[in-house]
This record gives sequence, C-alpha cells and structure tokens, in this order.
Amino acid sequence: MENPQIIVNFKTYANATGFNALNLARIVEKVGKDTGVIIGVAVQAVDLSRVVENTNIPVFGQHFDAASDGAYTGHIAPHGLKNHGAHGSLLNHSEKRISIDDIEEAIDVGRREGLFIIACADTAYTGKAISELDPHMIAVEPPELIGGDVSVCTAKPQIVTDAVAMIGGDRLLIGAGIKNREDVKSAVKAGVRGVLVASGITRAYDPESALREMALGILDGLKG
Amino acid sequence: MENPQIIVNFKTYANATGFNALNLARIVEKVGKDTGVIIGVAVQAVDLSRVVENTNIPVFGQHFDAASDGAYTGHIAPHGLKNHGAHGSLLNHSEKRISIDDIEEAIDVGRREGLFIIACADTAYTGKAISELDPHMIAVEPPELIGGDVSVCTAKPQIVTDAVAMIGGDRLLIGAGIKNREDVKSAVKAGVRGVLVASGITRAYDPESALREMALGILDGLKG
Amino acid sequence: MENPQIIVNFKTYANATGFNALNLARIVEKVGKDTGVIIGVAVQAVDLSRVVENTNIPVFGQHFDAASDGAYTGHIAPHGLKNHGAHGSLLNHSEKRISIDDIEEAIDVGRREGLFIIACADTAYTGKAISELDPHMIAVEPPELIGGDVSVCTAKPQIVTDAVAMIGGDRLLIGAGIKNREDVKSAVKAGVRGVLVASGITRAYDPESALREMALGILDGLKG
Amino acid sequence: MENPQIIVNFKTYANATGFNALNLARIVEKVGKDTGVIIGVAVQAVDLSRVVENTNIPVFGQHFDAASDGAYTGHIAPHGLKNHGAHGSLLNHSEKRISIDDIEEAIDVGRREGLFIIACADTAYTGKAISELDPHMIAVEPPELIGGDVSVCTAKPQIVTDAVAMIGGDRLLIGAGIKNREDVKSAVKAGVRGVLVASGITRAYDPESALREMALGILDGLKG
Repeated sequence: MENPQIIVNFKTYANATGFNALNLARIVEKVGKDTGVIIGVAVQAVDLSRVVENTNIPVFGQHFDAASDGAYTGHIAPHGLKNHGAHGSLLNHSEKRISIDDIEEAIDVGRREGLFIIACADTAYTGKAISELDPHMIAVEPPELIGGDVSVCTAKPQIVTDAVAMIGGDRLLIGAGIKNREDVKSAVKAGVRGVLVASGITRAYDPESALREMALGILDGLKG
Repeated sequence: MENPQIIVNFKTYANATGFNALNLARIVEKVGKDTGVIIGVAVQAVDLSRVVENTNIPVFGQHFDAASDGAYTGHIAPHGLKNHGAHGSLLNHSEKRISIDDIEEAIDVGRREGLFIIACADTAYTGKAISELDPHMIAVEPPELIGGDVSVCTAKPQIVTDAVAMIGGDRLLIGAGIKNREDVKSAVKAGVRGVLVASGITRAYDPESALREMALGILDGLKG
Repeated sequence: MENPQIIVNFKTYANATGFNALNLARIVEKVGKDTGVIIGVAVQAVDLSRVVENTNIPVFGQHFDAASDGAYTGHIAPHGLKNHGAHGSLLNHSEKRISIDDIEEAIDVGRREGLFIIACADTAYTGKAISELDPHMIAVEPPELIGGDVSVCTAKPQIVTDAVAMIGGDRLLIGAGIKNREDVKSAVKAGVRGVLVASGITRAYDPESALREMALGILDGLKG
Repeated sequence: MENPQIIVNFKTYANATGFNALNLARIVEKVGKDTGVIIGVAVQAVDLSRVVENTNIPVFGQHFDAASDGAYTGHIAPHGLKNHGAHGSLLNHSEKRISIDDIEEAIDVGRREGLFIIACADTAYTGKAISELDPHMIAVEPPELIGGDVSVCTAKPQIVTDAVAMIGGDRLLIGAGIKNREDVKSAVKAGVRGVLVASGITRAYDPESALREMALGILDGLKG
C-alpha cells in the first residue's frame, strides 16, 4: 500500500470510542472512496478488532510497546495489534512519549511483526533524529499547537519547510491544529505527504464534511 | 458479583493472544463452571472485545490510565474498557508501574466508569498503602518470584500472613510463582480470597488441568 | 532533633542557587534563631555541601533515588546526601513523582543511611497511603495550588482537616500557595506541625520579612 | 578546550563519593598531567563543587534536566551545575534514560548555560539519531556490556566501526566493559576520540595504574 495521506487519530474521545469508533471509521472509509485519498484511522487498542472487521481502510494503533511473547502485563504488543489486523501504529505521540532506546527497540519489534510505523516528533530536528531509526513515516507535530485553533501551517510554516528539507516529504505527515482545506493544501504544496489530524475531525460539527474538505486539500496541494 | 477467586493474567503471551486468548478464556469458563470457583481473565486490550463477546466470565484489562474523553493518544481509557464489556482491570502491575498519584486518579476515573479495580503491589506494605486509595481488591506479588518456580506461599509465607493481617483477606489476591493445588490451598487457608496467576497456566503443558488443580486448591483451602 | 516546623524549598530558582542559595539559607538561619521556630531548607544537590558547611540549620535534599553503592549514573544517592551532611530529604514532590514501589524502596535505603524523610503527596488520601510506608513526615500539597496566589488553607481547608485526621498532625506539613502569617496560623491551629513553602519566600520582595511572618504564624497557631 | 579523551564516570560508587570522589579525581588529575591525555570525571551532583574547587580537570555532571530558573523540585538544573564550575555533563546515560524530546530540550537549555554535553546512546543508530540534536559529543555504550568483563571493542567491534562511520570519530566516545590498554588502543585505532569508563577504574585494585594503562592505550592508538 502507498503511504497514507491522512491519518485520523481517534485518541480517547468518547465520540470515537466503541460503536462511535466504528461509525467514524465508516465515515472515513466513505470519504476515502469518494475522493481517492488514502485515509487511515488510529484507534484505541480496545476498538481495533471491531473497526478492522467492519471496514476496509488501514487501521492503526495509537501506540505500542517493544513487547513480545512474554511477561509484559498491560503493554500493547505488536503481535497483538497484528493479530487483530492492524495495518500499523503511531509511536511516540506527544501524549505518549517514550525514550529513544525504546523507540529503536519498538521499531525493531514492530517491523518484525509487519507493522507500518508512524513515529511522531515535536520538531523537525527530533523528527530527523527519529528518522535515523527507520520508521516508515514521521509525523511532526509541535505539541503546543495540538488541539488548538491555529494550524502548524499558519503558525509555524518554517517547521513544515524544515521538516521537508531534513526528513524528505514522501514519508512525512504534519499535524497540530489542522482544521481546513487550506491548511492541508499548503502543507502538501510544501512537499509533505499528508496530515495527522484529531480534534479537527472528532470535534467537528460535521466530521464527514470536515474530512472531505481536508481530502480535497490534499488533492488541491498535489495540483500545485 | 462476588470477588473473584482466581484471575488468570494472559500478559502478552502469544498462546494467550488473539484466537488463542479466546481458546484459553473458554477453558477458564469451563473450569469455573465445573468447580463453582469464580475465575476471571485479564487480557490484552486488543483481545478484550472478542473474549467478552464469546464467553460468560468476568473479563479484566491488564492496565488502564486515568484517561477520560479527550486527548490521551495511546492510553487505555476506562470508558474504552467498559464500552467493550470489561468487568474491571488490573492496575499498577509490577510490569506496568505508575506513580501513587496516578493510581489515585486512575481509581477515581475507573470507579466512575464502573470498573472493578484490582490494584497490584510488591509487598504487604505497599499493598496496605494502596488499599487506602480504595481499589476493590489488592493483589500482592513479590516481583522477584513472578514467573519463577517457587511460589510466594512457599518462599515467603510471611508476606501472605502479613498481607492478610494488614489488608484483610477478603479483598486480597496473592500471586507470584503459584503453580499447583497445594500453593493455592495454603494461601486460602491463610485467609486470602484467592490467587493471581499467569505463567502457571499460560506456560502449562495442559492449562485446563493446571487451572482445575488450582480451583480445587481454592475449595480445599475453604474447607480448612 | 524535633520535627521541622517550616521547610523552605529552594527548587531551581536562580535566586536560590549557588551563592544565592547560601545567602538565602543564612536568612533562614537568622529567622530561625530569632523566633525559635525550627526552619530547614531543601536545596539542589549541587548546593548541598556549601550550605551545610556554612550554616547551622537542617539542610535537606529535594529528592533522592533508591540508589546505593553501585551503577546508578545520574541518580541522587542517599549516601551521597548523607556524606555531605544532609539532615534529610524531600521525596516524591509533585514536580518529581515516583512510583509507590520506588517510594518504599527509597524510604528503606534512605532510612538505612540515616536520612530524615519528608514524603510529599497531593491529597490527604495519598498522604495517608504513603504514611503506611513510614517516612518521618508527610507533606500534603495540592499541586494545582503550588506556586499560586491562594493558599491551601484558604482554598481547601477541608484538605488540612482531613490530613490531620487521617495522618496525624505531628508529622504533617501542609503546602501550596502559603504566603503569609494568617495562612500558617490557621494550618497550625488545625493541628498541623508546620508548612512547606517555596515561591512565598524565594519570590518574595523581602524574603526575610516574609519568612519571619510565617514563623510568627507558627507561634500564633501554637498559642491557639 | 579540546574534546576529552577519557571520561571516568564515578556513578554512585561509595569509593567515588564524598572525599573518595575528591581522592579519585586527584588521581585522574595526576594521570592526565603525566600522560598529556585529556581526562575528565563525571561526578554525582552533590560532589561537584568540592571536586571542582580542589582539582584542575574538566568536571562533568552525570545527568541534567531541562530545568531552568523555576519550579523544578529535585531536578538537576544546568545553571546549578554551571554555577558550581561544571565543564559539562553526561546526558541520557543508560542508567538514566529520558525521552528524545527531553534530550532536545535539555541540550537547548544546557547549551545556553554553556555546558559541554556528552549524550549517551545504546547503539550506533541511536547515537546517530541523537547526534542530529547537536550535543558536543556522543558516547555509545551497549548497556548489556556495561560493568561486565568483556569490552565493547572485543565483543562488538562492529559497533565501534559503525559508530565512527555514522557519527564521525572526533566527537565519539566508546564505552562498556573497557578495562585495559588494548581495549582503548583498538578503539582509538578505529577512529574513536576516546572512551567512557566506570567500573574499570572505580572497581580496579589500583585505580591509578588502571587509568594510566588506559591513557597509554589512547597514545598507542594515536600512533596507529
């Protein structure tokens, strides 16, 4: 599969948990089909199997540990995610930071299980650093803008340009505060593969319209 | 429901993951029915919904965070567990330690969601300390004996006696190295409600027999 | 020595670092002598030996690890603190939280080295829990009030009353937002041994006057 | 000052604590003078000021936090280290791991305070990753060999070669299990600037001889 262009992070939002997770994933599936944009979802571990079984989109975990077959009570194991059909997982999200050695080990274990790994970073510099450990994609999100009203593209366009120059755009997602078509378009025009979004969809008045606008932003950006 | 008498912790053992988790949970269900002993399972978050939907036993998570409806990427939220039918969850297992403030906050959030919370501790003293924060049960497991060949009842009988005296036996589980009927019997005779087991079942040549022996150990112990 | 009645936490404030730490410690010494109130300071590890050597007050660390003679790079070891003349140390401050097992182990190691241990807690409940692990004193500080303008005595008088009832006043310090004589008096009248203060002194226009007022608050409270 | 060629990490060894720390630092000073090799020491925070005041060698901390002037109880602040004359500090040692964002932030704060920062890593890959965040030097130490009897140069020569190729030898230290002249010589011949040692000195029967041998190993290696 090609690298995803939009990942919708469900976090632990109540309206993206349980059957709500499935409903939102179906909206994602519909918008992906309608626009041709590759859109995945990152769901809570408990929600994974239901979403995988009832949709046909790439489903990601939100985090995993370097846990293998063994005594890792309470950990999220790559073989557990894979067993339930996960396409991959986020790693090192700003709401779930781990040490760099744990990142390296998790990428090793996760790759062996066949997970597609999207490692998150605060800045272009840490993104570049983590890219040395060979995850499949890097998502750069300045944490102070996550969940906010101003997008990284507007507030910190330099981060986007730096990240493309340092990491390469094809395996790069940008996130934090992304809310509309224009935000996405400007990111893609700057060379970024796509976007990582959360509250922009989960908190939207009409998630389907909001996501459709973002998908159109991807297409706008690719047109240049 | 009465307090469980045996909890089988599936950890991330491959033979207790995915369909293997369901198979093992069905064995647990069978032994519970046959003996009348209340036996629950603690499964990986990804496995929870399948085990809940296909068995009729109390299913527990192995860990949860003090995460509510919101921006908690990668966390295991009580409302997520509950939504999928979890009866409760372990908390603060020695393989997933958290700070005491996080324990307090997690117990608050978890209780509000209706989870039955079994908080783990290394010693009778930390067990007593955590009991002040009002989880439903306390599981005392000396970590140096977990997964080993000698049970806490044999190696450290004083811990069992102390824990009963300090915490009260009705809400107490004992674990670490418990492998056979005699181990369980001696714990129950000492006043403990039951046992928390993992490798004694998941690594057993014949898990059903192994669990049946432990269940009989519970009944032996109650006879005195 | 009797239990301290005021501890001034220097944190990493620049005006309480290096020679500024020594100057502030001398002010503390002066106010202690003048009023007869037992006042200690909790200083950065790097500042400890200079303050110990040049004052005659109880000097505390701000944190220590359960590190003994061995391979604990970057840890703060009880034998290191003791070697430089520390009277004791804070432990588990809200700005340096550790797990409950680490608290238990640190108290064990610290007591063996002869440290006087003041364990911090967010609430009366966690304070009670930690008191089971037998530190010398407990300091209860609701973190949302630390560094703020409203004292715990004004904003949450119930916490003070609860903490006295649950933990016992003699080994109890109260902190968070404490700024003046009245705050301290009301805490002591409620049965608390004393107070843990930081910005109320380190950020004061005139630290000596501010501390003197607090010391008088202790005496006021004891008069009833 | 030129990049150091040997750093002796005192950890929390009792025979490298307090006056023992000063004695060992004086031995280091002597060997450095005698051989012309640049040798620094990494001491516990409590020991820093005494060693700085009584020797004339580069003294490093073993860890620091991204803590500035403010409310960071129990943290080791760069301005505290600098105030007491530290030349620099280790960061992210395997016995004190931090997240990659904390590494980035600590390097920023530490550089602003003028610390010379030696960031540690488990492998050539994480070393390369961390080097993107621009510490002054990188120390690569496979943790499974730390404190052991076999040196990284013997057990994993490939790590040394890889690290030189990926990170560049001038700013590279190698560590783990290094005990004698031959170990050091082979590392330097492979292009490494020098070595990070601990138990090889602190646990040696005769620390002065052991260190002298290592210093001669540096000179041997430079001769080729």
